[in-house]
Amino acid sequence: MTPSQTATILIEALPYIRRFAGKSVVVKLGGAAIDQELDRALAQDVLLLRSVGVRCVLVHGGGPQVDALMKRMGKAPEFRDGLRVTDAETLEIVRMVLTGKINRDLVATINREALEEPVAVGVSGEDAGLLTVTQRDPALGFVGDVQQVRASVLHRLLDEGLAPVVSTIGADAAGQPFNVNADEAARAIAVAMAAEKIVYLTAAPGLLEDVADPSSLVPRLTAAELRDRIGHESISAGMIPKLRACAEAVEGGVGTAHIIDGRVPHALLIELLTDKGIGTMVKMEKDW
Amino acid sequence: MTPSQTATILIEALPYIRRFAGKSVVVKLGGAAIDQELDRALAQDVLLLRSVGVRCVLVHGGGPQVDALMKRMGKAPEFRDGLRVTDAETLEIVRMVLTGKINRDLVATINREALEEPVAVGVSGEDAGLLTVTQRDPALGFVGDVQQVRASVLHRLLDEGLAPVVSTIGADAAGQPFNVNADEAARAIAVAMAAEKIVYLTAAPGLLEDVADPSSLVPRLTAAELRDRIGHESISAGMIPKLRACAEAVEGGVGTAHIIDGRVPHALLIELLTDKGIGTMVKMEKDW
Amino acid sequence: MTPSQTATILIEALPYIRRFAGKSVVVKLGGAAIDQELDRALAQDVLLLRSVGVRCVLVHGGGPQVDALMKRMGKAPEFRDGLRVTDAETLEIVRMVLTGKINRDLVATINREALEEPVAVGVSGEDAGLLTVTQRDPALGFVGDVQQVRASVLHRLLDEGLAPVVSTIGADAAGQPFNVNADEAARAIAVAMAAEKIVYLTAAPGLLEDVADPSSLVPRLTAAELRDRIGHESISAGMIPKLRACAEAVEGGVGTAHIIDGRVPHALLIELLTDKGIGTMVKMEKDW
Amino acid sequence: MTPSQTATILIEALPYIRRFAGKSVVVKLGGAAIDQELDRALAQDVLLLRSVGVRCVLVHGGGPQVDALMKRMGKAPEFRDGLRVTDAETLEIVRMVLTGKINRDLVATINREALEEPVAVGVSGEDAGLLTVTQRDPALGFVGDVQQVRASVLHRLLDEGLAPVVSTIGADAAGQPFNVNADEAARAIAVAMAAEKIVYLTAAPGLLEDVADPSSLVPRLTAAELRDRIGHESISAGMIPKLRACAEAVEGGVGTAHIIDGRVPHALLIELLTDKGIGTMVKMEKDW
Amino acid sequence: MTPSQTATILIEALPYIRRFAGKSVVVKLGGAAIDQELDRALAQDVLLLRSVGVRCVLVHGGGPQVDALMKRMGKAPEFRDGLRVTDAETLEIVRMVLTGKINRDLVATINREALEEPVAVGVSGEDAGLLTVTQRDPALGFVGDVQQVRASVLHRLLDEGLAPVVSTIGADAAGQPFNVNADEAARAIAVAMAAEKIVYLTAAPGLLEDVADPSSLVPRLTAAELRDRIGHESISAGMIPKLRACAEAVEGGVGTAHIIDGRVPHALLIELLTDKGIGTMVKMEKDW
Amino acid sequence: MTPSQTATILIEALPYIRRFAGKSVVVKLGGAAIDQELDRALAQDVLLLRSVGVRCVLVHGGGPQVDALMKRMGKAPEFRDGLRVTDAETLEIVRMVLTGKINRDLVATINREALEEPVAVGVSGEDAGLLTVTQRDPALGFVGDVQQVRASVLHRLLDEGLAPVVSTIGADAAGQPFNVNADEAARAIAVAMAAEKIVYLTAAPGLLEDVADPSSLVPRLTAAELRDRIGHESISAGMIPKLRACAEAVEGGVGTAHIIDGRVPHALLIELLTDKGIGTMVKMEKDW
Repeated sequence: MTPSQTATILIEALPYIRRFAGKSVVVKLGGAAIDQELDRALAQDVLLLRSVGVRCVLVHGGGPQVDALMKRMGKAPEFRDGLRVTDAETLEIVRMVLTGKINRDLVATINREALEEPVAVGVSGEDAGLLTVTQRDPALGFVGDVQQVRASVLHRLLDEGLAPVVSTIGADAAGQPFNVNADEAARAIAVAMAAEKIVYLTAAPGLLEDVADPSSLVPRLTAAELRDRIGHESISAGMIPKLRACAEAVEGGVGTAHIIDGRVPHALLIELLTDKGIGTMVKMEKDW
Repeated sequence: MTPSQTATILIEALPYIRRFAGKSVVVKLGGAAIDQELDRALAQDVLLLRSVGVRCVLVHGGGPQVDALMKRMGKAPEFRDGLRVTDAETLEIVRMVLTGKINRDLVATINREALEEPVAVGVSGEDAGLLTVTQRDPALGFVGDVQQVRASVLHRLLDEGLAPVVSTIGADAAGQPFNVNADEAARAIAVAMAAEKIVYLTAAPGLLEDVADPSSLVPRLTAAELRDRIGHESISAGMIPKLRACAEAVEGGVGTAHIIDGRVPHALLIELLTDKGIGTMVKMEKDW
Repeated sequence: MTPSQTATILIEALPYIRRFAGKSVVVKLGGAAIDQELDRALAQDVLLLRSVGVRCVLVHGGGPQVDALMKRMGKAPEFRDGLRVTDAETLEIVRMVLTGKINRDLVATINREALEEPVAVGVSGEDAGLLTVTQRDPALGFVGDVQQVRASVLHRLLDEGLAPVVSTIGADAAGQPFNVNADEAARAIAVAMAAEKIVYLTAAPGLLEDVADPSSLVPRLTAAELRDRIGHESISAGMIPKLRACAEAVEGGVGTAHIIDGRVPHALLIELLTDKGIGTMVKMEKDW
Repeated sequence: MTPSQTATILIEALPYIRRFAGKSVVVKLGGAAIDQELDRALAQDVLLLRSVGVRCVLVHGGGPQVDALMKRMGKAPEFRDGLRVTDAETLEIVRMVLTGKINRDLVATINREALEEPVAVGVSGEDAGLLTVTQRDPALGFVGDVQQVRASVLHRLLDEGLAPVVSTIGADAAGQPFNVNADEAARAIAVAMAAEKIVYLTAAPGLLEDVADPSSLVPRLTAAELRDRIGHESISAGMIPKLRACAEAVEGGVGTAHIIDGRVPHALLIELLTDKGIGTMVKMEKDW
Repeated sequence: MTPSQTATILIEALPYIRRFAGKSVVVKLGGAAIDQELDRALAQDVLLLRSVGVRCVLVHGGGPQVDALMKRMGKAPEFRDGLRVTDAETLEIVRMVLTGKINRDLVATINREALEEPVAVGVSGEDAGLLTVTQRDPALGFVGDVQQVRASVLHRLLDEGLAPVVSTIGADAAGQPFNVNADEAARAIAVAMAAEKIVYLTAAPGLLEDVADPSSLVPRLTAAELRDRIGHESISAGMIPKLRACAEAVEGGVGTAHIIDGRVPHALLIELLTDKGIGTMVKMEKDW
Repeated sequence: MTPSQTATILIEALPYIRRFAGKSVVVKLGGAAIDQELDRALAQDVLLLRSVGVRCVLVHGGGPQVDALMKRMGKAPEFRDGLRVTDAETLEIVRMVLTGKINRDLVATINREALEEPVAVGVSGEDAGLLTVTQRDPALGFVGDVQQVRASVLHRLLDEGLAPVVSTIGADAAGQPFNVNADEAARAIAVAMAAEKIVYLTAAPGLLEDVADPSSLVPRLTAAELRDRIGHESISAGMIPKLRACAEAVEGGVGTAHIIDGRVPHALLIELLTDKGIGTMVKMEKDW
């Protein structure tokens, strides 16, 4: 690259760096998207962004890994309307897998990539009342909806220079743990933190006009436009919760919501620090 | 009780409360001693002590529960010289049980007892580099010895008014997780925190002159006297690591080390706030 | 006492300690109740409470001692409606006795009991404008009613870790000193400090249903109930000003007012740190 | 006066104001010199100096007034080598007169002159351990020598913008009060406070070459020169303790010691804020 | 002078010193009044006032010096209604003379007089957006009116203990520099700083009833009275802008505005620190 | 550019941004290199770097512009050994041109480019004693060598978020102004500020092996290697002072010294934020 091209990218990136310094960014990554090499690139992005003052919070799911352990323990996963039916034993397994395995692996990956000192810390929604939930439906067992987020728990860790990795187990007012959908939990956290951005890393390029045509990416749309599309047949079922969460996030005060391709290395960095970005961006108002 | 008796206890307790305010106390509880009712009483003690300014850190083990899950998963626990041989799969199970189950249950118990707001947070030795370890012996697999404790991680949580519950999984410099003996980890943490006290909750009244006679309790001894006894035949094998850890703790600067009976409800409170105490206390110098 | 009994008292006391930490408590003791042994116990209570963060202010009277010096100097005390007629010379004697003798003796007693360093300081209502008064009635001479309390004078001393002992001599706007009734001054101070409690130490168990029957103690009542009783014939004349002051204190925002038996050693400690208390407690609302 | 003369005085005074801002000045006034009009002028000086940041501490004696009350109470004052023989009853009288009368009168005078809010507070050497003493000689009874000054007591009051007036009653380690010579106490306080100046207000123009000739004033001398003169016959007996105290003060680190004429209104202001000053100044080194 | 006269001046000055400590005073001096000896006296006044906490800002003009350089460079100054017609080249010359010569000389003079360390700094209205202006009239070229003053620029320098000297070149929103009338700029700065005083140093004793009679000085008047006089024939044309600026300053919230004789050495000090002052004082309300 | 190329540049730049955040960078630009378009690019670089926390100080010379004004005023510039002979009148012209014209133009350019608010402020070495100098040689007149730099003047401006632009006029201890060589002044400032970098913008690509061959750039060398070359014939005379200043800077503790091509737009940004950089870098130790 020529000096002039380099200067162009830097001149483009620096105002973003300045704008996002001190701001919070919540990044949701799914159990499905997790791959060691991509995790390393993501860990690097989080550390680089943190190094210039962006306050990154990672929120993770882990469905496939839960299924794997259940099967290993001779227990068949059961779903109703796409939601895991969660009895007491399943809850214990979910909790062990999310907080005792996936969370730990992410924390370890970030700490391995950290050049100076380990900064990642695992946090469960049960810690210090981070996620207070209520039961969604007795038929689903211990599945909860987030009622309240104690964002100060995360802000204080970020103030200390730490990088929190959140498992989405919550507790109700009586202290009973519940399993919480990670897409929704991430949204609730972003809203409660008054985050600048929420970013969903997915296994797709973003929102596509035509799900069969990767070049039909919708780069930007408003929350209202997004809501119009949610019922549309062109949308894959798996994408709907993310789209809804994006709309709710910006309606709840988050600056922008993003759905980007978690399979592109450093997608997070590119999305945040370039004019063009990657994937789909949702805002409240059309200002582009 | 008469007003005079009540006054006597309060007059006795208040100077201790004052002395320990702002000081750190590390409490180790074992997997074996865990019982729901006692856990509740312990949770209350931790919350009461915290309410008057004592900085309590709980450190837990969990051997029996690890054995249970391993058996459930069709894996036979293996020990060498009392230490668990820990291959990669065993490590993953230990990590899931300690950080994903026992730690979570303790956090949930304390938060349930908290009158105002949840204050307990789970912490793993991997978080933010809390416990840096080195491998003890390749034959034992992923079993580590604590090389360094980043006490600031705990102090910052305590500064925020939180009550940390620590699982003793550490990581080596390259980020590889290791299983760590909880008695030793608690001692290393207490020394690094410059704690005022370390308290081991056990299933015995303390150190006994005659292990068969519960009335033969040794109420106080110096670290040197304790070292003299360690090799002694009257000492049960299971007690030796705790005794050694007590000696090392006070030699390392911890004010006093205590072995008390975890089966007595509120043993922690009584030990800290009365002249007579309960169990065995170890100090560097004989000043009684 | 058994460990369990001890634990019960501590578990009862700790929440009070927490609740009162950082709160102000004004304690009024009369000249009549002063006895060296009880003073020592009171001094200990003040120091213990202070050691756990309670901000104690002592306010004292001293009628009998004033009479004694007047007689020694050949001057006959004169009273009208229970109030001392105070000419210029009497004022000078009152001032000398209160600030130069009783206050000094209390300060000395507390400082003698202090384990670490002397913390008691004498304060007169004239110091830094603590008590601004107006003349009550020319016929009474230099007898004043409190118009304004500069509570910051006491708060600043408490902030420094000191224990103020207040003599109730005030000054009017022109700087002329006046004698002030100590029960009323204590109430005015407690209100101005937004104190949590005001405690009157008396030579009776508290408010009695039947003044002849010490077992007829009224343990709790509201300010309104107290006002109803004040005119009642069962009330001794000497108790009326204290009862009125209690009602005015809680009506003025003080959390609770107490009349307790100053002849019981450590009555203050027991009243503050046990559920049952000792003596009579007055609150605004009936919440028991 | 012409503008030019006015400018000259101001240009002379401002650097002193700047130099003394934030510095401590201890002013000793004797019982003998006390006169209402002069007290008012002194109170004004203290308030003016305080308003530009000088930290003034007044220390007072009160021999004549003690004698008066003793006589009134039918007790004959007794002296040995110029020191008051102080039995328990005398001590009580001294304490009442100093802290309950003279101190109070000075506090009242300053507070009356204060334009904005009362700032004077009375302090006894017994308060918060200000003056720790040891008995000088059993034959003298309760007469003490200052062993230690807790200067922080005064500094904290000054930090709060208050003007302390100190009575020189001290206490020994066991809390027993003692009478202390005010000239010496003032010196000890100035040294402990690391004061910039100590000023003795006397009934003489300063140190005179010839005690009979008021024009023979010695305007400046070093501590060594002063020590040379102390034994000299030209020095009046009453002046000796002050001269010795001046020498000890500057040897102890006080910037300068002054003996000035308390009968000249505003002598303190003139001494501090003009090049020429008034009275006698003592310094460690001759730098004039 | 006698001690009593000295005391009188000091007692008079100290309350002013106290009142002005921490307050801002803007002093305008004109190019015409500049004389090396007077500048030295002014520099001393500024430094003395600063030493007792007054926050002085000097604002200067420089018409005669601009004319001199223009002539030297073969350019004829041109005026319209008393305002300099300012083309691009003239602007460059004005800027060089004001910021590169007069400002520098004043900074150098103050720094030379400073006893401890140099505290004067030159500031142009262009620095950090101090003076934002708009063009007055195209026919006048680059002559601007102050629209906004960023007073924080000066307050921050004063907070650092520095003494700013301001050249009155401003810039419009697009960054184009403009020449600004110094009398008006000083007024705008004083209003924006919420200054206690603005002082105009002139070549006259102040406002005279009869311009031919120096003894006809008007010592005090209100802004309204001043406005009444402005159109009056007795007022010299050159004085009008200053009078108008005085009225606008106090109407804009400045405590008092002063027109004093810059030819009297130390006029500033005398005006600020004596009851009688020198020159003419303008206030909003008649309170004398 | 592809996302991957963009990511590469960002991943490269972010660690530099982090490393330089809070660090000082002194940039010297010469009178000769000044061109409006390049000045704008430089102003943008300074603002971008400032926005991510780099503390930039610009230092400028201005020989050609001084010559121009001197000629305009009919005065012939005179040089001895490359140094301007500076009589009193020349000094006044130099001062007017540097502080009244070039400095002002740079301040205006930066403030014009600032998106939010004007941040540039002009500073002369005379302000607040920034540059204390001594005369180099009476034959050269008012030409000074920097003896002392009061770096706190610049640090305080940077702490306030301002961007100082420095003219290199200094003053001696008596306050007499002197002209100072800008290359040397920049070096002295960088050393006194403990700057991370000093950057010389020149009209050459950097240090060339063969001055006639622009591709013979020496990208990195140690201070010792640089000193070896200084005497070498391949070095142009005009480059020698810069090379010497670079060596002295890194020997004086500045992290790195750079000579870069001021004619390349955004050269400063590229040099600071890319691995490869542009121009020549000098370090104390060879660590590449």
